[in-house]
Amino acid sequence: MTVHAYGAHAGDQPLQPMAITRRAVGPEDVQINIAFCGVCHSDLHQVRAEWSGTVFPCVPGHEIVGRVSAVGEKVSAFKVGDLAGVGCIVDSCRTCEECGSGLENYCDNMIGTYNSPTPDAPGHTLGGYSEQIVVNQRYVLRVGHREDQLAAVAPLLCAGITTWSPLKHWQAGPGKKVGVVGIGGLGHMGLKLAHALGAHVVAFTTSESKRQDALALGADEVVVSKNAEAMAAHRKSFDFILNTVAAPHNLDAFLALLKRDGAMTLVGAPSTPHPSPNVFSLIMKRRNLAGSLIGGIPETQEMLDFCAKHDIVADIELIRADEINHAYERMLQGDVKYRFVIDNASLKSQ
Amino acid sequence: MTVHAYGAHAGDQPLQPMAITRRAVGPEDVQINIAFCGVCHSDLHQVRAEWSGTVFPCVPGHEIVGRVSAVGEKVSAFKVGDLAGVGCIVDSCRTCEECGSGLENYCDNMIGTYNSPTPDAPGHTLGGYSEQIVVNQRYVLRVGHREDQLAAVAPLLCAGITTWSPLKHWQAGPGKKVGVVGIGGLGHMGLKLAHALGAHVVAFTTSESKRQDALALGADEVVVSKNAEAMAAHRKSFDFILNTVAAPHNLDAFLALLKRDGAMTLVGAPSTPHPSPNVFSLIMKRRNLAGSLIGGIPETQEMLDFCAKHDIVADIELIRADEINHAYERMLQGDVKYRFVIDNASLKSQ
Repeated sequence: MTVHAYGAHAGDQPLQPMAITRRAVGPEDVQINIAFCGVCHSDLHQVRAEWSGTVFPCVPGHEIVGRVSAVGEKVSAFKVGDLAGVGCIVDSCRTCEECGSGLENYCDNMIGTYNSPTPDAPGHTLGGYSEQIVVNQRYVLRVGHREDQLAAVAPLLCAGITTWSPLKHWQAGPGKKVGVVGIGGLGHMGLKLAHALGAHVVAFTTSESKRQDALALGADEVVVSKNAEAMAAHRKSFDFILNTVAAPHNLDAFLALLKRDGAMTLVGAPSTPHPSPNVFSLIMKRRNLAGSLIGGIPETQEMLDFCAKHDIVADIELIRADEINHAYERMLQGDVKYRFVIDNASLKSQ
Repeated sequence: MTVHAYGAHAGDQPLQPMAITRRAVGPEDVQINIAFCGVCHSDLHQVRAEWSGTVFPCVPGHEIVGRVSAVGEKVSAFKVGDLAGVGCIVDSCRTCEECGSGLENYCDNMIGTYNSPTPDAPGHTLGGYSEQIVVNQRYVLRVGHREDQLAAVAPLLCAGITTWSPLKHWQAGPGKKVGVVGIGGLGHMGLKLAHALGAHVVAFTTSESKRQDALALGADEVVVSKNAEAMAAHRKSFDFILNTVAAPHNLDAFLALLKRDGAMTLVGAPSTPHPSPNVFSLIMKRRNLAGSLIGGIPETQEMLDFCAKHDIVADIELIRADEINHAYERMLQGDVKYRFVIDNASLKSQ
């Protein structure tokens, strides 16, 4: 099947309309008519070849929601017409300890939704900036939200699970004081989810102008991290800090806010390293500096179900596919509240 | 009471004999006739004012063992003649959450055995390079080893507990693969303790010449960390790595050896920072980089009891007090297997 898509033929070229091929629906496959696809910072890094290993043509997009348009004969959990989602993972080895634990995101052979090797044409996976996608049922998520929420559900598939997984792993919940550093695509979901999980949530931002937004998103308190006095008032008080900022910054300023055995987990990876953290920041209170990568399939389903139940979606700005290059520029300026989502119906008319 | 001691009057002066005063034995105090005192790297840093805040005169020493020479009227757990030990901590607030959890080492008002504020003369604590010490019973440890082991027990009070505490906290034991980086004062204890706890122990060293020693100390395998191929063979396989190296080095090389959810804990603090760890090293397997500071009083007792039961002591070289300046120079060259211990009887004749 040939479908319309939007992608790039080289790292220094803008994204443009292209035709791509999707494989025939196999016995365990689910074909999804993509309604919306969120725009993640990773899309930009990958398609512009800012990370190593980009293969062209590159069709980004791993925040995919739509309706099932076909299913293979061995698929029982989905039927044509169902709402469904696909996140960052479309395959993995299915046999390692990670896959067996539902943590396919840590499988050494995890197949990303785009730019990973596949037997399908053209030899690497192509993402959600396209009309249709065909994915093994094991990696397809059920979506329990209302149809009118669907565009805003899309970012849950990456921004949502990337913040949900560490919040759950480090036990954010009632009685816990949780910080969220950065209020962007990831951070705004972190605030919503940590709040809904029952934690006392403190948002950290470099800009005073985001205070009201942060409170509206679920923060109980907002700290402007450039204000040393405001930071000092929170010393040694946090159980967990979710740090979503990908730009290099001083980690010690936040590590100092953790209580004994507290952890700060990084979910953003800067292109140049952070200043090296002071070892005393870790030693003095047996603190942990950790990282976390997206989330596994079962916990992605858990997050989607939780969000449907609690009426949680992302804050988005809907765009047409042909606005993507401009959206990337705005994303680089931080000019989006808080996630661009492509209306994939706009691909049909190109 | 005036006693002989060995200390320095300034950071740029060698240690020399001096007389110091010990407080009268209070109702809850234990006075110890110090038999041996281990020589820790911290002693050198502090007495040479290489760390901020050294107060002079400075009498170092926080690996103290000896016999009880007097007890206060409210002391029931110790009697004159008992073997006893004092480590890095001689007081703390006793009311905070840390103290209540037996983690006095993380109390914000922990009083170190030397260089901490005290009402006693001269206004700051003076350590174990001295004939006697007077310490509140709450901070005095029982020593169950044989008397002929006593000199080699001394280093357990710092090097022992500093490695025991993280090994226990991160659950080193049967079925776990544990690395120990660096084979010095701390590392050699880490190898002995991890082995006795039942873990599969891998020693990492930069020098091939330490291979046989490491195996004798309890390592099941030895890896020369400069050998990239040998390192690669252990990728993603460790549950826990105890890193005792205080010199700045590449942390990523060791983080890459951790399996998912593995932790590397730093117990050495370099005077200049390590190269900044790569965030991807943490993100890709949800790895943790942590720190740990000595250990609390109850776990120090637990460690001493464990060591007495398993016949574990440090490997030491016994010196006279007047050899301490030379010993510091040798320590800086790494020329000691693996801990200097002062025979405090040598203080009497000065």
